[in-house]
Amino acid sequence: MSATILVLNGPNLNLLGTREPSIYGAETLADVEARLAARGRDRGVGIDFRQSNHEGELVTWIQEARDRAAAIIINAGAYTHTSVAIHDALRAAGLPVWEVHVSNVYRRETFRHHSYISGIAEGVIAGFGTRGYDAALDAAVARLAAPPPS
Amino acid sequence: MSATILVLNGPNLNLLGTREPSIYGAETLADVEARLAARGRDRGVGIDFRQSNHEGELVTWIQEARDRAAAIIINAGAYTHTSVAIHDALRAAGLPVWEVHVSNVYRRETFRHHSYISGIAEGVIAGFGTRGYDAALDAAVARLAAPPPS
Amino acid sequence: MSATILVLNGPNLNLLGTREPSIYGAETLADVEARLAARGRDRGVGIDFRQSNHEGELVTWIQEARDRAAAIIINAGAYTHTSVAIHDALRAAGLPVWEVHVSNVYRRETFRHHSYISGIAEGVIAGFGTRGYDAALDAAVARLAAPPPS
Amino acid sequence: MSATILVLNGPNLNLLGTREPSIYGAETLADVEARLAARGRDRGVGIDFRQSNHEGELVTWIQEARDRAAAIIINAGAYTHTSVAIHDALRAAGLPVWEVHVSNVYRRETFRHHSYISGIAEGVIAGFGTRGYDAALDAAVARLAAPPPS
Amino acid sequence: MSATILVLNGPNLNLLGTREPSIYGAETLADVEARLAARGRDRGVGIDFRQSNHEGELVTWIQEARDRAAAIIINAGAYTHTSVAIHDALRAAGLPVWEVHVSNVYRRETFRHHSYISGIAEGVIAGFGTRGYDAALDAAVARLAAPPPS
Amino acid sequence: MSATILVLNGPNLNLLGTREPSIYGAETLADVEARLAARGRDRGVGIDFRQSNHEGELVTWIQEARDRAAAIIINAGAYTHTSVAIHDALRAAGLPVWEVHVSNVYRRETFRHHSYISGIAEGVIAGFGTRGYDAALDAAVARLAAPPPS
Amino acid sequence: MSATILVLNGPNLNLLGTREPSIYGAETLADVEARLAARGRDRGVGIDFRQSNHEGELVTWIQEARDRAAAIIINAGAYTHTSVAIHDALRAAGLPVWEVHVSNVYRRETFRHHSYISGIAEGVIAGFGTRGYDAALDAAVARLAAPPPS
Amino acid sequence: MSATILVLNGPNLNLLGTREPSIYGAETLADVEARLAARGRDRGVGIDFRQSNHEGELVTWIQEARDRAAAIIINAGAYTHTSVAIHDALRAAGLPVWEVHVSNVYRRETFRHHSYISGIAEGVIAGFGTRGYDAALDAAVARLAAPPPS
Amino acid sequence: MSATILVLNGPNLNLLGTREPSIYGAETLADVEARLAARGRDRGVGIDFRQSNHEGELVTWIQEARDRAAAIIINAGAYTHTSVAIHDALRAAGLPVWEVHVSNVYRRETFRHHSYISGIAEGVIAGFGTRGYDAALDAAVARLAAPPPS
Amino acid sequence: MSATILVLNGPNLNLLGTREPSIYGAETLADVEARLAARGRDRGVGIDFRQSNHEGELVTWIQEARDRAAAIIINAGAYTHTSVAIHDALRAAGLPVWEVHVSNVYRRETFRHHSYISGIAEGVIAGFGTRGYDAALDAAVARLAAPPPS
Amino acid sequence: MSATILVLNGPNLNLLGTREPSIYGAETLADVEARLAARGRDRGVGIDFRQSNHEGELVTWIQEARDRAAAIIINAGAYTHTSVAIHDALRAAGLPVWEVHVSNVYRRETFRHHSYISGIAEGVIAGFGTRGYDAALDAAVARLAAPPPS
Amino acid sequence: MSATILVLNGPNLNLLGTREPSIYGAETLADVEARLAARGRDRGVGIDFRQSNHEGELVTWIQEARDRAAAIIINAGAYTHTSVAIHDALRAAGLPVWEVHVSNVYRRETFRHHSYISGIAEGVIAGFGTRGYDAALDAAVARLAAPPPS
Repeated sequence: MSATILVLNGPNLNLLGTREPSIYGAETLADVEARLAARGRDRGVGIDFRQSNHEGELVTWIQEARDRAAAIIINAGAYTHTSVAIHDALRAAGLPVWEVHVSNVYRRETFRHHSYISGIAEGVIAGFGTRGYDAALDAAVARLAAPPPS
Repeated sequence: MSATILVLNGPNLNLLGTREPSIYGAETLADVEARLAARGRDRGVGIDFRQSNHEGELVTWIQEARDRAAAIIINAGAYTHTSVAIHDALRAAGLPVWEVHVSNVYRRETFRHHSYISGIAEGVIAGFGTRGYDAALDAAVARLAAPPPS
Repeated sequence: MSATILVLNGPNLNLLGTREPSIYGAETLADVEARLAARGRDRGVGIDFRQSNHEGELVTWIQEARDRAAAIIINAGAYTHTSVAIHDALRAAGLPVWEVHVSNVYRRETFRHHSYISGIAEGVIAGFGTRGYDAALDAAVARLAAPPPS
Repeated sequence: MSATILVLNGPNLNLLGTREPSIYGAETLADVEARLAARGRDRGVGIDFRQSNHEGELVTWIQEARDRAAAIIINAGAYTHTSVAIHDALRAAGLPVWEVHVSNVYRRETFRHHSYISGIAEGVIAGFGTRGYDAALDAAVARLAAPPPS
Repeated sequence: MSATILVLNGPNLNLLGTREPSIYGAETLADVEARLAARGRDRGVGIDFRQSNHEGELVTWIQEARDRAAAIIINAGAYTHTSVAIHDALRAAGLPVWEVHVSNVYRRETFRHHSYISGIAEGVIAGFGTRGYDAALDAAVARLAAPPPS
Repeated sequence: MSATILVLNGPNLNLLGTREPSIYGAETLADVEARLAARGRDRGVGIDFRQSNHEGELVTWIQEARDRAAAIIINAGAYTHTSVAIHDALRAAGLPVWEVHVSNVYRRETFRHHSYISGIAEGVIAGFGTRGYDAALDAAVARLAAPPPS
Repeated sequence: MSATILVLNGPNLNLLGTREPSIYGAETLADVEARLAARGRDRGVGIDFRQSNHEGELVTWIQEARDRAAAIIINAGAYTHTSVAIHDALRAAGLPVWEVHVSNVYRRETFRHHSYISGIAEGVIAGFGTRGYDAALDAAVARLAAPPPS
Repeated sequence: MSATILVLNGPNLNLLGTREPSIYGAETLADVEARLAARGRDRGVGIDFRQSNHEGELVTWIQEARDRAAAIIINAGAYTHTSVAIHDALRAAGLPVWEVHVSNVYRRETFRHHSYISGIAEGVIAGFGTRGYDAALDAAVARLAAPPPS
Repeated sequence: MSATILVLNGPNLNLLGTREPSIYGAETLADVEARLAARGRDRGVGIDFRQSNHEGELVTWIQEARDRAAAIIINAGAYTHTSVAIHDALRAAGLPVWEVHVSNVYRRETFRHHSYISGIAEGVIAGFGTRGYDAALDAAVARLAAPPPS
Repeated sequence: MSATILVLNGPNLNLLGTREPSIYGAETLADVEARLAARGRDRGVGIDFRQSNHEGELVTWIQEARDRAAAIIINAGAYTHTSVAIHDALRAAGLPVWEVHVSNVYRRETFRHHSYISGIAEGVIAGFGTRGYDAALDAAVARLAAPPPS
Repeated sequence: MSATILVLNGPNLNLLGTREPSIYGAETLADVEARLAARGRDRGVGIDFRQSNHEGELVTWIQEARDRAAAIIINAGAYTHTSVAIHDALRAAGLPVWEVHVSNVYRRETFRHHSYISGIAEGVIAGFGTRGYDAALDAAVARLAAPPPS
Repeated sequence: MSATILVLNGPNLNLLGTREPSIYGAETLADVEARLAARGRDRGVGIDFRQSNHEGELVTWIQEARDRAAAIIINAGAYTHTSVAIHDALRAAGLPVWEVHVSNVYRRETFRHHSYISGIAEGVIAGFGTRGYDAALDAAVARLAAPPPS
């Protein structure tokens, strides 16, 4: 059976494609999900794609991923900058993590420059639009194919 | 059809009138809702009055306001000081916002002096008790009657 | 004899209605004074409305208010952020204080986010335009009618 | 009827005994609950033991404790360091609070050194493993038996 | 009629030439005024040269300059580092501003390194002695002759 | 002819004996002046005792002291913490300075812990009530009798 | 021969039971020593209980503990917050350490929130009154019975 | 003629594949250059691939890119964190910029968390190994094909 | 029997009159002791005058003062800036405290600007040479004669 | 033989007149050099005008100036804010230094507000466009004609 | 008679050679003393070698050195980072000082990066093991042979 | 063949012996090189002694040392405090490093107190004049003779 990659989206990402298109682009989250699912199929992995505005729900999904997924791609939105709980859940999950931001957060307000996730992620990609998810997916697939020596 | 103004209340505001009355007064949130509803009727606007202890639920309600409301009055309680997610939702909603605090937060602990909402609000009122909601309502109604030139 | 409420305006507020109307509106300080005087009459209080560019003069007026006024409404303008002397005078006056800002100072430069007055004010209102004075007046009148138990 | 003590556990504590056992030990939260329930029976108090990943749910439970419990023992996990809402709920509850951490948080990352709970707790215990709950329970029972003079 | 340039001097500058000559030189403020007046005549502009120890008086003069002057050259002395009121007045005046310091303030105490004026000035000159006024005057005259495209 | 010692009092000190007597005592500034004048007569020096709420006026008086006084005793009140202008005037005056505070400012708000005067004063006395003026006067007289070797 | 546990008390703890009883309780240090000795006997360990006001003496005792004790329980009082020397001695001793504070230090002045000991302690207990020593003793005994795998 | 993309590498990147392979991988910079050149050919763009240990040389190359290249991909290595000169050159070049780091810099020392480049880059990718260059190349090519509306 | 006033001197004050006389003067500590003893006799109080280089010894002396003295005058020297232990002992002693520094510490290095004693002292005197002890003695005597109403 | 004045220009100043003309103007560095050379000839001094993007080259030129020049005018561009090496070279050169910035750096990003040069320069001029070089040249010539007494 | 050099060792240095040998090496303090004594004999100076865990004792020894020694070599251990008293004693002693650390303190915890001694030492050596004492001894001997011109 | 030790000198060190001799002494860099070469011959190692004002050149030399040298002694001058690139090169080189400063940098400006090299150096020596190089050479030779166990 093929591996599954959990792709998590945090608060307000359900608005993707509808708010501030000059910053975030016109693609919706459903568009992204569809494209990633197809890309996953091409690479032989399943995609479990979710969004929540609730920090607690994201925490729960990450916890469950320990038994269900082989890697996590996360765009935690605003919780990136404030959630120790998600940090803890990711660390407990023990899976490789890639952090995605659609916009270049380092170009925006100072409070978006710190991430509680970056310090435990394999990689971070920001400002590549929704193509950041694709890059993260490719990195995750490559990692699953060739894990680092323990 | 008349415009609707969303009045949002954050965590612990359901306790209004029952906790620390020397700071917050004896009026309950239901009292405030009733008074605002009447005041809205007088001024020809509907009031959608809500309270939640969940950051994520507040985010969702703000998102939905884009299609349902013409302005937002928000007393985000403790989330005022910690929630980037609510900040983002408010900015995405694209509606004018007024920030209300029943007590004078600038007189309390230092961690209550910073607000993630003030920077995107039209106005801020604190320490006027529950009458701050009325002032915000009047300001919102005035704005709807005379929007700033675009 | 009816109570008097001192309404103090700090530096540059004499320019109200003439500078940066997009931020401060087109109403002049004389307009505000006239409107407040009428509102005071309606509510049975006298209004003593003043403006000065001099920190020392504002200090002196606040000192004199101890014998002449029952409450102080103050828009200290730039001195809000720099004057310990006004803070001390207000504290010595022993009267309830309401702080008004025409614009939303929390949305402007960082050096406008701290106020030496907020920590001793009953309430703070900012960004409601000149209607902030009216709200403060109503709050002061309500307080005079129903002082807190000592 | 005997008093009830609310024992609250925050995000990721449902993983206790399964994640990072070298830090947190091998005991599960159910084990802790069972042991505390027995200890409570011995001392004549009931234990209401709960866990949630949702900040808002923890807030609600604390609010409800005002009528249902006589003391609160809380291990708020990651929310310890970020939640003003839980701080406010605890203060509003008006019950004595003990703060428990299974690991020694002061030995870990700097962002775990500040707690929004410690400033309103009777006592804090960290790094005593799950036995910290027992110590907190004993302290709560002792307090109920001999409240401080008002 | 020729344009007028307001040259403002803040607290203690009336002592110029008499205090700490090793830092400030031996020229008096009257000497500077005379030299600037002559230089202004040469260039076809009038010079309105003033000094005050009062922050409020400087604010008032800046306000009045809106109708009377075409540019402002200001050596605000100690108020450079503490006066938001002068900052606000300058911004309200809507005239181009040049900031002059006789000594090199960046070489002195740290509290002289920040200026509330620099952020809204066209240019800043410090440590050129009283010749800084001449340079500022020339820059102002050049600007009046060739304003930037609006 | 005997030497004169300038005793300067800043904003709100005219209220001495009338505001917050538990902090400042019941003696008025006139009482202090009378007592100091007598003490000066005993020691053969004249006392020039003044108070102003205006920073600029205090600056001017300090400037004038260069020719009229042999030492300065200053209780700058709130300007202690905010006035670079008074700092500059004192330094320019070239006279020995003693700094007096009636209350113990180091026990009060943090913003009263820094003084722009202490760094150039001979000595600082705080919390000795109005007797601090006497101690400063004695120190000034002793200095005049036995100046340090140049 | 049974193991010995060193229980160290820092400056001013000799006053326990006599100073500020509302914060520290009425039990004296001798009371605590007697109770711990008995508890130690029950559990088969000896207690070496000491107090000193001298940082250097505490350092020496910790050094000596390397050969004489199996664990250290320390309430370093004020030195908790200032002593790198005690930190170094504890680290050099190579014994497990438990940190005790009678009052909840996190609820007091900010300078009591940092501890040079917490970062090398197994556990920290504060605000449990003198019962914190008992909890630390039990934890130390448990550790001696079941040391962590090396 | 096809567009050229400048790919710049800063200090120590010439060691790629030879130093700390557990962090940076075993691929050399020549390997990366070859792979990018091929990828560029596939996508119809030329690659100008360079490395220098000299800040000044990197500045010069960026300046020259204004006339020779259509986009810049830069891994400035250590200069990322210290070079205002490279920041200025990039801004002057007026070309879209992508920032690449082979390792996840946000997981390393604090002084690597700030970048003088991120604030003017379109996107940032870190921790994706040398595949970050490919992702940046694809983004640059996409941008050239579909520039944002001006 | 007459009251006793404890006069405590911290590290290096035994060198008074021998080190850096340009800062500290030529009087020795024995000279000061003799003068204070005489002044005490005149005022009907005994003087217990001590010096130690040991923080712990100073702590012990302060503790003992609770039963032996009616007030404490302390020049803690360097420990002023570093000793929480002395702060705690002074607070526990429950006696009025006056803080003396021979030199003006606010004019010296920044690390001498903070005192752990000032926040609990009645008054602070610095830079008045050894006459600061006399002023403190007079203040203590006055306090004993007329204690504040409880 | 006439004295020579070294005029140094740092990174990106070779772009003057070509990048961001709204900030820096349209004049090129060659234009400035020509104008300064002429002005120097008028005043009887030679001008050695150079530009480099290399910090090390600027250091070397400053070192060589010790034997070849009588004063240094420097616009170090970005190195102003980051180069301790240039600071050291200037200090070692032992020549008077004037610091020039074409734009008003105090009006731009915060990281441009600190200069490693200002603290050792005679004077600083910013925001006067390229005329700042002329003012600096005149000041240098005046200094050579009338050096300060040693 | 030959000069004496005082070599002082602070807290925990009596453990040298016994604690954490991987950091501090296996040599004991007695070994160091013996080696330095011999080296001193070779160079014609006496060595007074001491260790104390007491800050106050170190202060006293430094004070006494004024009459007994010609130079001080000090490894103050933990007191390096916390003792203003030792700083003051060293400054009062008026002897040249060399600071030694066996380990490289700049590579360890941040709180070891600041030294109250470095600012008044001739030189600092850290991380050279116990050979740092030898280097300091040689420097002291050289200084005694060739003092700097006064 | 004997081992080689690379001795690197950063910007402005070519001026040694010529600038500020009161701080740096009269010895030139060539003198130091000659002395070290002789000392190396005595100890059986070769010395590769270099100086550059260019950060990039220093980086390149450190990179090359990996194959050519057995240890690095570096006095990076001003780059000590600003160069992450040199830090990275040293770390990549994988050789033991000793850091030398001729003057005591900890006694100079604050910006010289932080070093990007100290955290990866074996030892640091400052303020021993040019004899610091000798001490570092001896330490390097000792290390080569007796490397630490891997």
